[in-house]
Amino acid sequence: MRKIPRNELKQDITLATLEAAAQRLSNWGNWGPDDELGTLNYITPADLVAAAALVRKGKSFSLGLDFNQEGPQLTGWGGRFNPIHVMLATGTDAVAGRQDEGKLRYADDMVSMPLQCGTQWDALGHIFYGEKMWNGYDARLVDSAGAKKNSIDKTRAKMIGRGVLLDIPRFLGGDYLEDGYGISNSELDACAKAQGVEIRRGDFVIVRTGQMEQRLAQKDWGTYAAGPAPGLRFETCEWIREKQIAAICADTWGCEVRPNESTVAFQPWHWIVIPMIGITMGEIFYLKELAEDCAADKVYEFLFCAPPLPITGAVGSPINPMAVK
Amino acid sequence: MRKIPRNELKQDITLATLEAAAQRLSNWGNWGPDDELGTLNYITPADLVAAAALVRKGKSFSLGLDFNQEGPQLTGWGGRFNPIHVMLATGTDAVAGRQDEGKLRYADDMVSMPLQCGTQWDALGHIFYGEKMWNGYDARLVDSAGAKKNSIDKTRAKMIGRGVLLDIPRFLGGDYLEDGYGISNSELDACAKAQGVEIRRGDFVIVRTGQMEQRLAQKDWGTYAAGPAPGLRFETCEWIREKQIAAICADTWGCEVRPNESTVAFQPWHWIVIPMIGITMGEIFYLKELAEDCAADKVYEFLFCAPPLPITGAVGSPINPMAVK
Amino acid sequence: MRKIPRNELKQDITLATLEAAAQRLSNWGNWGPDDELGTLNYITPADLVAAAALVRKGKSFSLGLDFNQEGPQLTGWGGRFNPIHVMLATGTDAVAGRQDEGKLRYADDMVSMPLQCGTQWDALGHIFYGEKMWNGYDARLVDSAGAKKNSIDKTRAKMIGRGVLLDIPRFLGGDYLEDGYGISNSELDACAKAQGVEIRRGDFVIVRTGQMEQRLAQKDWGTYAAGPAPGLRFETCEWIREKQIAAICADTWGCEVRPNESTVAFQPWHWIVIPMIGITMGEIFYLKELAEDCAADKVYEFLFCAPPLPITGAVGSPINPMAVK
Amino acid sequence: MRKIPRNELKQDITLATLEAAAQRLSNWGNWGPDDELGTLNYITPADLVAAAALVRKGKSFSLGLDFNQEGPQLTGWGGRFNPIHVMLATGTDAVAGRQDEGKLRYADDMVSMPLQCGTQWDALGHIFYGEKMWNGYDARLVDSAGAKKNSIDKTRAKMIGRGVLLDIPRFLGGDYLEDGYGISNSELDACAKAQGVEIRRGDFVIVRTGQMEQRLAQKDWGTYAAGPAPGLRFETCEWIREKQIAAICADTWGCEVRPNESTVAFQPWHWIVIPMIGITMGEIFYLKELAEDCAADKVYEFLFCAPPLPITGAVGSPINPMAVK
Repeated sequence: MRKIPRNELKQDITLATLEAAAQRLSNWGNWGPDDELGTLNYITPADLVAAAALVRKGKSFSLGLDFNQEGPQLTGWGGRFNPIHVMLATGTDAVAGRQDEGKLRYADDMVSMPLQCGTQWDALGHIFYGEKMWNGYDARLVDSAGAKKNSIDKTRAKMIGRGVLLDIPRFLGGDYLEDGYGISNSELDACAKAQGVEIRRGDFVIVRTGQMEQRLAQKDWGTYAAGPAPGLRFETCEWIREKQIAAICADTWGCEVRPNESTVAFQPWHWIVIPMIGITMGEIFYLKELAEDCAADKVYEFLFCAPPLPITGAVGSPINPMAVK
Repeated sequence: MRKIPRNELKQDITLATLEAAAQRLSNWGNWGPDDELGTLNYITPADLVAAAALVRKGKSFSLGLDFNQEGPQLTGWGGRFNPIHVMLATGTDAVAGRQDEGKLRYADDMVSMPLQCGTQWDALGHIFYGEKMWNGYDARLVDSAGAKKNSIDKTRAKMIGRGVLLDIPRFLGGDYLEDGYGISNSELDACAKAQGVEIRRGDFVIVRTGQMEQRLAQKDWGTYAAGPAPGLRFETCEWIREKQIAAICADTWGCEVRPNESTVAFQPWHWIVIPMIGITMGEIFYLKELAEDCAADKVYEFLFCAPPLPITGAVGSPINPMAVK
Repeated sequence: MRKIPRNELKQDITLATLEAAAQRLSNWGNWGPDDELGTLNYITPADLVAAAALVRKGKSFSLGLDFNQEGPQLTGWGGRFNPIHVMLATGTDAVAGRQDEGKLRYADDMVSMPLQCGTQWDALGHIFYGEKMWNGYDARLVDSAGAKKNSIDKTRAKMIGRGVLLDIPRFLGGDYLEDGYGISNSELDACAKAQGVEIRRGDFVIVRTGQMEQRLAQKDWGTYAAGPAPGLRFETCEWIREKQIAAICADTWGCEVRPNESTVAFQPWHWIVIPMIGITMGEIFYLKELAEDCAADKVYEFLFCAPPLPITGAVGSPINPMAVK
Repeated sequence: MRKIPRNELKQDITLATLEAAAQRLSNWGNWGPDDELGTLNYITPADLVAAAALVRKGKSFSLGLDFNQEGPQLTGWGGRFNPIHVMLATGTDAVAGRQDEGKLRYADDMVSMPLQCGTQWDALGHIFYGEKMWNGYDARLVDSAGAKKNSIDKTRAKMIGRGVLLDIPRFLGGDYLEDGYGISNSELDACAKAQGVEIRRGDFVIVRTGQMEQRLAQKDWGTYAAGPAPGLRFETCEWIREKQIAAICADTWGCEVRPNESTVAFQPWHWIVIPMIGITMGEIFYLKELAEDCAADKVYEFLFCAPPLPITGAVGSPINPMAVK
């Protein structure tokens, strides 16, 4: 696989930088004091109709990584682990006659999983800035009983619209970006232009780095979870707010470049984009087939649909996003 | 709420009835010996394009019931339980300064849940007929390590198409069908005709009984899980196969009428439709707002999208189905 | 079964009462500023030798209630649930030949359970008084990552010593105490005297109310978890501290009488005994056979051994306590 | 640490060897056709009294390894994983005032864990020989609903008696046995003799290899779970049966030497000792302090108490075994 080598980034983002960005980019109150949807509000009914019209050849793609014990949660960051799928009833029981008293032969199962162990949405209640979360709600409204505000179930009917893929490594002539490669605002714009696709208000923007495919190819997740990764530079906070997109997604663990551009904040871009801008974030997207199809037909826009599980009070949700062209 | 009283059904389905139905209605081999998709194969690219064109006013509906401890798994049928949502990190920790060493303030969470505890897909590996499952695979291919065939992850990119709502209680002039009300083939046809909607090959057909809404209104699930319920009569096996629909869904625990029309089989309709016909089934759908909208605009068709979580080897998946008009 | 009718208790414990008790009964600092064991410190090596000498007839008793879905966690207080026991491998798999590639035929299993769903120890970190826990540690040292102080694993080698059963209903001439029956200090003393057993420093004192046996007999847990129950009156705080016992246990959900003697505090006795006195508490003990044996041989003392699972940072542990006579 | 180098073992145990051993060593029927306790039956009341008399200096030891994410389940053998301990309520919630409506400030927690992820008992239903388990019961009696026979809860009151430590590496002049070191019958006898301790009918025999301590010292579990390990040679099946001991325990993942002495069976010793001899096995015991104390005072016998959690139908149980001298 062809690697796009990393660029060298400064780690110069200070708490003052963050505070300035927080104030400058805040969308708090833009949709009223009771809002819990943030930039998903940008999507209009007309946008949905237009997005559906992008289904032209009737081809659907699953952007969900398999949920299993081979997933990327090796380091156990924050106590996360790979999904534990266990059977409650099996065909071996059935054939052994163990179920016949119940007059039904069946299999059944359960799962235990961190809501952000694989392909996922971050809810707006996932990240705090200081003592606050999106729209100024007190962070303490997320306690052991779940999130009273900004939980993922609030978005239950909103995760559909126009999707746009920005395939950065293909644009740059490679298969994947090296860990530590930071994507700039101008690259996002140039990539869109080269692909012939416009970024519009209310879009679900999906950024491909190729990192997941490279890891899958080498059969070793390595530092994928929480470690070095290609991703969006801090400056893209500005781009995201200005473009008024609905959501931002990537094929990496945390969307933003790592090592981060800061030594005082872990995931500094997260500090701003979720609690201050109010954008829902998608992570660990599987993009291989979609990207290949886009490269083949030169169409980088599509109907996107990724409904979260409406788990009451959850700050994230596993998903199987779909793109339909 | 206006109740449509139950009709009295005979419990006369014998093992011989079932065996005759199994042989007569089998779709095994129709899509080759290696098929694991069953009637989802009916959906064509042209169907997807046509389904997307049903998005006319840009209104989206979530058909997923909230996943929480207030769910319907009271009886614990088969060891099922309501979802257990637990926090791995909270805003109270964040504000107490407990996370500051990690330079990020955040919340995180996990869930433990039976895959069929709420709004859900049954995979083709969920129900067996004798020692076999869909397409003739040995039931023992579903063991404690999961399903080697007919698991839900195989359908990952297929759960999108034209949705049609059949609102039986509204058609019959009520709000909900009483437990034990069996819906016949002729009622399905008459309802569709009255609603001005045609059932087509490849459709996701969603049958509303009103039972869930009645239970939610009375704030007591009662016998919802595994107990008496309105639903499809056994004869609808024939209707389903003949119509060549892609999937069948309902707002009840198990789609079919209970008490069942048999004393020798629990859920006799399941014995046939999943393993022999090969149809994916959706259960515990929340239909209130969608049904009200359809009643208002007289449009009972829509784009339907309900991607399962691709849990490797799973025989079901929780979902948040979306309907878009 | 013969019921001992409830006595009528006042609900007159105020926050001022609690604060006075907290100050008067505090053992903070008694075993140094770094102590995390509380009254378990009372047990001396000589006590252990003496306790072992109580094994005279070689009869052992399990005081653990079965851990399964039939347990008492009906109300889901605090999100608790009955244990979920699930198989990871089965004999049906084995006999079906599904394991033979691994050259071993076996069964394996897992459990998901609240640590206080059944017979259990409360750790000293389980209950707070104001912003503090046992020995004055900040309550915020118990966060989503577990308890940094006063966790149950600290007691790993300490849960052995002299056990004494106080069988209150037998002493009062009945089989069980009615819900709401409050046991006083004088009753504890009179019961011990009637039984011919002395309460000594370092004892594990086990109080039988008969409530569990009554619930098991009626095959309905009813209000067992968090609802009305017989139990220790608030004044027994004083008795417990004065007697310098090592631990206090009962056959009820929460040891103390419910409805509580307060309307401003839930479980007011807990407020004092765990964080201020520093006593480890055992709950939901199954006492039937032990109590019958003690009644038969008139010996109410025994070797007691109830090692907790040393789960790092846990604030409780399921246990299977043993009494040996 | 001083290593005792491995000896070279043949891998010559065939299925015929196993079948001969199974027939020769079978204890099936010895305690009647309904027995589910196996060699635990050897323990008499007099044994309990004698065991308690071994408590001479009043010193207790916990033999349980910490249950946490740092445990030995790295390889995920059979889908096992390290314990997942999660909070249901925290002190940070309490201090933030989030619990005050409930009038109690507290912490609470839960765990999800394989029953054999750490220090544990194997139940007699854990291992099968052919289509049978201990005492000739059909292996299919262990299905997805648990074990109908030979489950760990049957032993609830039996796990107490005389414990004997056999400290093989100390006997051989080292700190630990190298992976692959096989312990023979004559070494067991010689070690006991050198230690001045007699192995008696009904004993809980605990074999120390030092492997766990070596792994803990190097802060890397390496192959501990399911990989190369020191342990008992296959021939010790004979020793175990002849000595009529009650249980056999070790500080390793699986008691027996690995690589195994067979290429046709994984854990061939398990094939015989559990289903045919009917002996309960303890694994992953933490022995450091106990072994040091025994070396210091030359007393290798003690009261042993390791009550399992009585999880209904379980084929294993996590434990915190205690030794008291």
